[in-house]
Amino acid sequence: MAAALDRSLKMGMAGGGPRAFIGDVHRRAALLDGGVELVAGAFSSSPRKSRAKGRELGLDPARVYASLEALVAGELARPAGERVDFVSIVTPNHLHFAMARSLLAAGIHVVCEKPMTFDAAEARRLRKLVAQAGCVFALTHNYTGYPMVKLARDLVRSGELGRVRKVVAEYHQGWLATPLERTGMKQARWRTDPRQSGAAGSVGDIGTHAANLAEYVTGQRITAVAADINAFVTRRKLDDDAGVLLRFDGGARGLLSASQVAVGEENGLSLRVYGERGGLRWRQEAPNTLQATSLDGPQQTWSRGQDHVAARSPAAARATRLPSGHPEGFIEAFANVYANVCDTLRARLRGADPDPLALDYPTVDDGLHGMLFIEAVVASARSREKWTRLPRS
Amino acid sequence: MAAALDRSLKMGMAGGGPRAFIGDVHRRAALLDGGVELVAGAFSSSPRKSRAKGRELGLDPARVYASLEALVAGELARPAGERVDFVSIVTPNHLHFAMARSLLAAGIHVVCEKPMTFDAAEARRLRKLVAQAGCVFALTHNYTGYPMVKLARDLVRSGELGRVRKVVAEYHQGWLATPLERTGMKQARWRTDPRQSGAAGSVGDIGTHAANLAEYVTGQRITAVAADINAFVTRRKLDDDAGVLLRFDGGARGLLSASQVAVGEENGLSLRVYGERGGLRWRQEAPNTLQATSLDGPQQTWSRGQDHVAARSPAAARATRLPSGHPEGFIEAFANVYANVCDTLRARLRGADPDPLALDYPTVDDGLHGMLFIEAVVASARSREKWTRLPRS
Amino acid sequence: MAAALDRSLKMGMAGGGPRAFIGDVHRRAALLDGGVELVAGAFSSSPRKSRAKGRELGLDPARVYASLEALVAGELARPAGERVDFVSIVTPNHLHFAMARSLLAAGIHVVCEKPMTFDAAEARRLRKLVAQAGCVFALTHNYTGYPMVKLARDLVRSGELGRVRKVVAEYHQGWLATPLERTGMKQARWRTDPRQSGAAGSVGDIGTHAANLAEYVTGQRITAVAADINAFVTRRKLDDDAGVLLRFDGGARGLLSASQVAVGEENGLSLRVYGERGGLRWRQEAPNTLQATSLDGPQQTWSRGQDHVAARSPAAARATRLPSGHPEGFIEAFANVYANVCDTLRARLRGADPDPLALDYPTVDDGLHGMLFIEAVVASARSREKWTRLPRS
Amino acid sequence: MAAALDRSLKMGMAGGGPRAFIGDVHRRAALLDGGVELVAGAFSSSPRKSRAKGRELGLDPARVYASLEALVAGELARPAGERVDFVSIVTPNHLHFAMARSLLAAGIHVVCEKPMTFDAAEARRLRKLVAQAGCVFALTHNYTGYPMVKLARDLVRSGELGRVRKVVAEYHQGWLATPLERTGMKQARWRTDPRQSGAAGSVGDIGTHAANLAEYVTGQRITAVAADINAFVTRRKLDDDAGVLLRFDGGARGLLSASQVAVGEENGLSLRVYGERGGLRWRQEAPNTLQATSLDGPQQTWSRGQDHVAARSPAAARATRLPSGHPEGFIEAFANVYANVCDTLRARLRGADPDPLALDYPTVDDGLHGMLFIEAVVASARSREKWTRLPRS
Repeated sequence: MAAALDRSLKMGMAGGGPRAFIGDVHRRAALLDGGVELVAGAFSSSPRKSRAKGRELGLDPARVYASLEALVAGELARPAGERVDFVSIVTPNHLHFAMARSLLAAGIHVVCEKPMTFDAAEARRLRKLVAQAGCVFALTHNYTGYPMVKLARDLVRSGELGRVRKVVAEYHQGWLATPLERTGMKQARWRTDPRQSGAAGSVGDIGTHAANLAEYVTGQRITAVAADINAFVTRRKLDDDAGVLLRFDGGARGLLSASQVAVGEENGLSLRVYGERGGLRWRQEAPNTLQATSLDGPQQTWSRGQDHVAARSPAAARATRLPSGHPEGFIEAFANVYANVCDTLRARLRGADPDPLALDYPTVDDGLHGMLFIEAVVASARSREKWTRLPRS
Repeated sequence: MAAALDRSLKMGMAGGGPRAFIGDVHRRAALLDGGVELVAGAFSSSPRKSRAKGRELGLDPARVYASLEALVAGELARPAGERVDFVSIVTPNHLHFAMARSLLAAGIHVVCEKPMTFDAAEARRLRKLVAQAGCVFALTHNYTGYPMVKLARDLVRSGELGRVRKVVAEYHQGWLATPLERTGMKQARWRTDPRQSGAAGSVGDIGTHAANLAEYVTGQRITAVAADINAFVTRRKLDDDAGVLLRFDGGARGLLSASQVAVGEENGLSLRVYGERGGLRWRQEAPNTLQATSLDGPQQTWSRGQDHVAARSPAAARATRLPSGHPEGFIEAFANVYANVCDTLRARLRGADPDPLALDYPTVDDGLHGMLFIEAVVASARSREKWTRLPRS
Repeated sequence: MAAALDRSLKMGMAGGGPRAFIGDVHRRAALLDGGVELVAGAFSSSPRKSRAKGRELGLDPARVYASLEALVAGELARPAGERVDFVSIVTPNHLHFAMARSLLAAGIHVVCEKPMTFDAAEARRLRKLVAQAGCVFALTHNYTGYPMVKLARDLVRSGELGRVRKVVAEYHQGWLATPLERTGMKQARWRTDPRQSGAAGSVGDIGTHAANLAEYVTGQRITAVAADINAFVTRRKLDDDAGVLLRFDGGARGLLSASQVAVGEENGLSLRVYGERGGLRWRQEAPNTLQATSLDGPQQTWSRGQDHVAARSPAAARATRLPSGHPEGFIEAFANVYANVCDTLRARLRGADPDPLALDYPTVDDGLHGMLFIEAVVASARSREKWTRLPRS
Repeated sequence: MAAALDRSLKMGMAGGGPRAFIGDVHRRAALLDGGVELVAGAFSSSPRKSRAKGRELGLDPARVYASLEALVAGELARPAGERVDFVSIVTPNHLHFAMARSLLAAGIHVVCEKPMTFDAAEARRLRKLVAQAGCVFALTHNYTGYPMVKLARDLVRSGELGRVRKVVAEYHQGWLATPLERTGMKQARWRTDPRQSGAAGSVGDIGTHAANLAEYVTGQRITAVAADINAFVTRRKLDDDAGVLLRFDGGARGLLSASQVAVGEENGLSLRVYGERGGLRWRQEAPNTLQATSLDGPQQTWSRGQDHVAARSPAAARATRLPSGHPEGFIEAFANVYANVCDTLRARLRGADPDPLALDYPTVDDGLHGMLFIEAVVASARSREKWTRLPRS
């Protein structure tokens, strides 16, 4: 992780004001490896709150803006080389598209929270805008940043498991088991509000992570779903729980369970993959190991940082900062998305081709696919047909 | 577990010849607590094999029979009081019904392996025969014999979790990941043969256990399924994998995954139940503990044999032979089914009412429900309709 | 486990009356595999209690005795071939020697609870008596009956780990954290009474198991100890906790921790062994797996019942009744001691040499070594010298 | 963690050149929360290597020095307010004292790696120098930075466990199981060289962490040791393994095992504490949870980030950046030491009293105690006396 840093990249942030959660994560993740400075922000639609956050972070007040539009205008007004290189969008979903459009129009690279947009139509439009702008656009499906997820993908890719047959993806949380949104809790409020979140609640917020993780590791795309979604908490307008049967384009079958009412579960994302000759299990809450099984021989526990992991997965090695036994966590995985985005940006700034391993971050295509997944799950849940196919992205 | 034993119960066995697996388990389970003798058997359709097994077990050769019919005739010919009290049927599925019918007709109590019959029609007929005969008929859904499963049920019953919302039941094995049935391996052969197993493979063999476990713990019955079943191994005639969405009569929703091609999984039956106020997790491979969660407070691990377990679940205490920390396993759980069946039989022999806790074993109703589940899953997998309802049992 | 049973072995029991714990375990263990009948007992020094236990077990009242001496006399008075073949001694420690002496004098084989005797002097005398009598004498260090412990030993023996360097043996329980002996609880009372237990409390009751396990797996004998023993509960007369540094005759060094005041621990026996090239970890509370590590490569989890376990350890395979994933527990491990003892007895009754694998049960030599360990630990705890050597057994 | 940052603190570093491990950890940890800038360094005794590291980190070349003395001189030559506020010493042990002395003499605050000095004599002198200088001196016993360690301490402090009786501290690694120092591997070389490490190898490198952890959580100081230390690898000059019996000033007894030849162990630091009414278990490799037991009731798993953790331990809450289920790891724990040091420094710069919770970092007193521990263990290992007392610090 010690690539030469040509110059420090300048980061801006949209969203992430006081009481936000994910904004701080983006900031710590982006800054973890050095070579990135947070220089500008439009942290809140409240100018007062935006300024407060800017002060907390020690930013130049001139670069703390009251809106994304002001940020774009203000930064463009600065000399080239002093402007933000990229902006991270960490607002609720309904704001992503317009913000991304403005940034791309100004030639500013974008890192965006998931789900990518309010609906699939916006996602298709955004994909075109990214292509036209020629900018880097990265989506923070951060869980694929974990080294052991990369090892899992590489073991599948290398044929270790044979053809993948069965996939079980889960993302269970319990924090919305009660009507928390009616207590005024901000995180709960927007996630359960269809005007801010879009067509889905838990399916969009966490189901897309599970689906993305399954696709990343197996290298197969979900083609059809049979879904049952539920809003268990009274008067909740969006789903807080979902069960989905999956079919993949490579012949795998699967189940996906997402829940935000699974009392006592914290951030229980997990994946199991079974192929003809082997199996893999990974749990986000114990992310430094990967379990592997084979037709014969003892079960294996691979551990991040070991030489034999590096030998099988250069991507895992690249995403590793500490020796085995020294736990890396959520921020480091998140930072691995940023590290690859930033290495890609630095290569572009140098006019060079990025290291192919640096291109290993979620893109606008993944974002569009996620939106198609959300809409297919919601449609399936309303349908009397067994299977609902995802349109081609 | 030290109830006075009025007299030793006499056990017979149908099936369980050389190379069989489950017959030995039934015998050890039945005999574990004393007060039961194995006195007769029709261990194989091959008279030679049946005799060989009888010799191995030290049985009186006169009571080792070449067929179930011969066993019934031979035992009825003995003086009352010397006959078998009950017979355990441990053959492949297609033989269960006829054998049970013969036994019931002779007034012999029956313990039967699952799935109960070849199809649901036979199951309905069997239910009538049991009612007519007035005999005890028990089905070895042995996993509900585990004390911590009984604790789980009692915690749900007592309202600890509030209304149950979500259920995830899994049963993953890997032993059929290759075409083992084509190597001549007996266990694999009959399980993958529709003429012996019936309409389903993995769904019948292990899916019914998972479904039964979910129903036992939640106290809710599955009412509808949306299923995808697969035969991943080439030329296999029955499913070796299934994914099923579940709806329950008490409002719970769920997922059930059963697989016999999950490479590296051994006997991975597990259940998670989430209610309004709490959650439970149990894994068959670590059966002596139960994880419990609540809306607040640390996660709890309840451990078999502790006083606080007994206080919450007399059924768990009754099913416990050893202090906590002294692992009990598969045979003990199996023995708990037998212990309750035998206590019920002893009470009947005494003309007394059995302890209500002794009636806690799976019955012909559970067996019929299991057959309806199998047929609904198979029908759903073929249907274009999202949901397939189970008929009322 | 399906050896032909020439004739049923006849078992007697000394001790194990009402409210006893380990007597029932011995009975279930001895009977688990068939081919053994419990026919006689002197269950209690109270004739009334002995009779009550005999009735509970359905024994012939004529063979329920008021004392061990009466049992010996009564059985010898029976025709050869109808007498007990062996007697299991399951009383408090102070009675073991005299009982074993009587049985051996009568030519009756003995299975004896540990620690073997009241003190090392008795143990030396007993060793001579066993040699003179030519009887089988087995000590129930039952934990070495677990298949995965046998696999561990066989991996060490085969040189998989290289020379063993470091051993960490623990046995932590919490049940004596309060003065339970003053509540009248029988199990606590005799274990904390120096007149019944001998020189040590926890060191004798559980420390000897941990020491025996370490020696069994490493194949090295403990030669010297540096010990600190404690009686944390007020007015307790024997140790309830111990920390011991160990030196072994093969050059290994180790630590042994035994405690009966480790609140919340149930039956926490565990062993870790580190050699030049590999390591092993085993926990009694999860006995069906063994963790193995090597200088490179992922950590491995070996699982009882797998083919690759059988290939490395015929002793583990022989001690296995169920397929992997079907948990075996404490009773099965205990039964493995009995199975080997009984196979040895059957071979002797046939005039044949026993299968060498059948000789894998703890003997009077192990018992003597255990007593020397106890006395060395107690002496060390009182000594100002760093190291106390164990005398040669 | 969002305290107002008056001004950014300026950090310097001594050591941490190319191929170093812990220097990068210090830098990431110090910078994780914002409000700290790395501005100066003497990264290596090789001026070339020091400059290379400075370039990699994007430092002003004028503030990249060839020695600590040059750093002190160079920084003192800068205007007040532009100098380094503190310097982190991350060199091998033998250099700590002289560097710390120079910094303190210049009024520069110090963060220092452990073990604190080359020997206890230096440690006593350093303690005086710290007192005279009036500077902050912090030692990176980083493992006490983990929130769940702070919860453990606070549960003990609050009397939850009653009087602590028994402590088991372990720190097992396997990386030195082979003569790695003879391959030229830098980390191995200096750790096994008595001229750089001092009197002890594994005891100083990791044993001191385990001892510090035990003392931090129990609130008791180790007063005497009985030790056996070993150098298992041929020709190794310092211990690579140790077993130690412990006595504490509050009456607790304990065992400490440290090993760097425990093949397959990665960074296996763990602690178990048993008191009269409860027990605690914590493992560094799964640092986000703490197991707690009581005389009755289920075992509990406390999880970092939960409200009930915060309620019992404000120190744990303060040391928490992410919600439960979002793993925090080694860097975050390390950062918690820095966060408290920096908050203390900021308070001093403002002329205010620091938050008492900010004073929760290891001090020169802990460092001296650690050196006394090392020397006592080494002396005990050579002694024929059972117990070696630690001198009063």
